[in-house]
Amino acid sequence: MDQRTPSPPLYETLAAGVTTLIDNGLLRPGMRARSVRAFAAQHGVSLTTAVQAYRLLEDRGVLEARPKSGFYVTQRSHRQRELPTASQPPQRASTVAVSNPVFSVLSYAGDPSYAPLGCAIPSAGLLAAERLDRHLARCARVHGRHYNIYADPHGDAELRGQISARALRLGHAVPPEGVLITNGCTEALNIALSVTTRPGDTVAIESPTYFGLLQVLEARGLRALELPTDPTSGVDVKALDKALGKRRVAACLLASSFNNPLGSRIDDARKVAIIRVLTRYRVPLIEDDIYGDISFGDDRPRPFAAISPTADIILCSSFSKTIAPGYRIGWLAANRRHDEILAAKFALSLSGAALPQKAMADFLKSGGYDAHLRRIRKVFADNIDRMRRVVDRSFPRDTRMTDPKGGFVLWLELPDGFDSDTLYQRAIRERICFVPGGLFTAGRGYRNCLRLSCSHDWDARVERSVARLGELAHELLA
Amino acid sequence: MDQRTPSPPLYETLAAGVTTLIDNGLLRPGMRARSVRAFAAQHGVSLTTAVQAYRLLEDRGVLEARPKSGFYVTQRSHRQRELPTASQPPQRASTVAVSNPVFSVLSYAGDPSYAPLGCAIPSAGLLAAERLDRHLARCARVHGRHYNIYADPHGDAELRGQISARALRLGHAVPPEGVLITNGCTEALNIALSVTTRPGDTVAIESPTYFGLLQVLEARGLRALELPTDPTSGVDVKALDKALGKRRVAACLLASSFNNPLGSRIDDARKVAIIRVLTRYRVPLIEDDIYGDISFGDDRPRPFAAISPTADIILCSSFSKTIAPGYRIGWLAANRRHDEILAAKFALSLSGAALPQKAMADFLKSGGYDAHLRRIRKVFADNIDRMRRVVDRSFPRDTRMTDPKGGFVLWLELPDGFDSDTLYQRAIRERICFVPGGLFTAGRGYRNCLRLSCSHDWDARVERSVARLGELAHELLA
Repeated sequence: MDQRTPSPPLYETLAAGVTTLIDNGLLRPGMRARSVRAFAAQHGVSLTTAVQAYRLLEDRGVLEARPKSGFYVTQRSHRQRELPTASQPPQRASTVAVSNPVFSVLSYAGDPSYAPLGCAIPSAGLLAAERLDRHLARCARVHGRHYNIYADPHGDAELRGQISARALRLGHAVPPEGVLITNGCTEALNIALSVTTRPGDTVAIESPTYFGLLQVLEARGLRALELPTDPTSGVDVKALDKALGKRRVAACLLASSFNNPLGSRIDDARKVAIIRVLTRYRVPLIEDDIYGDISFGDDRPRPFAAISPTADIILCSSFSKTIAPGYRIGWLAANRRHDEILAAKFALSLSGAALPQKAMADFLKSGGYDAHLRRIRKVFADNIDRMRRVVDRSFPRDTRMTDPKGGFVLWLELPDGFDSDTLYQRAIRERICFVPGGLFTAGRGYRNCLRLSCSHDWDARVERSVARLGELAHELLA
Repeated sequence: MDQRTPSPPLYETLAAGVTTLIDNGLLRPGMRARSVRAFAAQHGVSLTTAVQAYRLLEDRGVLEARPKSGFYVTQRSHRQRELPTASQPPQRASTVAVSNPVFSVLSYAGDPSYAPLGCAIPSAGLLAAERLDRHLARCARVHGRHYNIYADPHGDAELRGQISARALRLGHAVPPEGVLITNGCTEALNIALSVTTRPGDTVAIESPTYFGLLQVLEARGLRALELPTDPTSGVDVKALDKALGKRRVAACLLASSFNNPLGSRIDDARKVAIIRVLTRYRVPLIEDDIYGDISFGDDRPRPFAAISPTADIILCSSFSKTIAPGYRIGWLAANRRHDEILAAKFALSLSGAALPQKAMADFLKSGGYDAHLRRIRKVFADNIDRMRRVVDRSFPRDTRMTDPKGGFVLWLELPDGFDSDTLYQRAIRERICFVPGGLFTAGRGYRNCLRLSCSHDWDARVERSVARLGELAHELLA
């Protein structure tokens, strides 16, 4: 086992067992838990260990101690929290201007002296990319000379082969020649937009959506048409149909699954329905599959391109969320427009760095990626679970929150009138960073919402910071 | 001394001495050279060595053997070759559409089975980047974990510091915070154009100019206003002044020195005059300084930004031509528009790969870069010299060619009516690649011109290929 992921202490495992009983309804809110002594005997552990487990459960708000009576399952289980409402963005295209507030947030989000609830970037420790780094070290030592050339603008052939092979496992038949390596998913999105849109065009997107995507639209002079989106099931197909009937839309840009910030997952049937609508209006789909590999279940959702292989779809993705944010290796896979796509890549950055691509190809070939994915899916699922519990016990009673089945962000919706910008200002003063909801739209909505990132190793500081945000939210609503 | 640059053989040194005598006018075309025997005695070398030196000089077209009479300095010394005429592009802005022919050429230029006179990319062997690669291997081994994060969108702080320190040596005071690391110079140009232009705008450029730059303009929907450019001294200041008086130009994009394909060097006085004109019309200058470090003389030309520190200039450059094409590390330095520049970088590719930047910073800190530059300057100067000699003895008499004092490309101008596209088709059939002149303009000019790259190790194949191109040109003109 990796040095950085030692077995959890015994009391933690015991506490997790209790939590599972509650999650499965075998222990219900208000029920009395075994006494510490009985618990210790039941599990054959020392009294100290049992006390530690109960303390942890108390800290997490799973159990509460009642004086002279023992421990009880807390009444406010996070299972009772309602989901945020489906969004209802205005039915018109907006010009985009989000850069300034985004940079203000990012300056704090990247500063380790702030609690890391801001950036949706896995911490380096969690990703444990040492194996990948060893491949890079070896490549630089062994291959340096041969790779000190402008790479093929398409990118390293072996890496494209590996990506093609992985796609095939999801039923997505894209040959290596159909894959283009990019400088992260952001460049892939730029290329996809450059071959499907012209400045002034309108692009249909989910609402709320990732602020970095809004920045791309802003920089390209594109207008955003935000679509009603359900926090569980994704974009509203009828609303999409209606919107496309009303105005010309140059492209539709959707997260394949576990979008940022909602974490919604679009099931296969809905994906088919979406493609049917887009095909009818001849609108190309740009799909961002960057979170697809971080599915908490066993079934990794299939991208649109796998479900509708003949449709006009440009798939964009990267390794930045799963293994190597620092390598900046993304890709794009399309079944048409190859020449335009290559010309766009050439005009944007000529080609990508050669050795990191070669190292990534070697790493994928070595087979370490799947074991890695299994590990981090569990970690992120656990982080989301923990954070939901802390939110549940700390935030005002009528706070809604998402229950994502993948990714590593949580979206909170507080009562109307709540101002997450004010919460943000106060939190920053206390060295806690998160992203206020207003950054996830080109319009003026989501001021009562906020995004918390669960992408860092869970520790007391993260837990304390979420709890403190809850207290601050209480104060703001008082 | 590096293993890859052993001392040249004695006969080569002797031959170089003879060439110098000719270049300095002490031996003039038509004069008789010493006999081989006298030459051997004069230098105290064996007869074999003297014969080798004379054979080399003969091969290079410096000396010619006349039967029963001995060796003579060839009549057609390259010193007599005329320079190409200053360009006279049409005085109107053109839409740009060069992508298709460019890709056709690049597919051959990157294929090692073709003689490498196409791509202006130094061969990996010449660059000898093993030291840099060792730094990368070490960084991946030692720092991997700490660098597996999204880098600051500005780029690695140490690298920016090193670039800032190097700029200062040229009198260019740009603080590290004013430097932005990019994915090669191409991304830097994209960012510079994105903060100074909108689609449909006109950009003033040199003519002829690098086709990759034309592709960037094409992708951004910009129009090109090509300026008359002298192959020695650069862009015509009066013509620039006149052009700016006639129409709105959003930005002017010039190579600081040794532009591609002319190799022209703009002296300081002309740089001042250009900035004065641009400032009067409030036109920002984007300068591409990518070849500035490959100056054959001791004086590395100063970029515009060093000469006019308060003017509105965005300097773009990279390490791709001097040490690491495969690393794709470029940069941009500006004294204003910092926020917009950062937003543009963020929207294009978020940030650059972290470890290659760190490795480059370590390499620069280690002080190896300057020794490296001294070595490759000499190699490229020698390559240019050799190629000029072969062109001189192989191409039709009225072929003009540039005499660059930096960089590694030669520009040939054949008589009007010569069609370098036809030459290109025939050359490709014989597995020789070069770039026909028509790719260096958005208009229809330069069909009688071509660019030869001298960026590869000089060898018999390169020499033979240039000679063969000359024969083919003779055939085409016959």
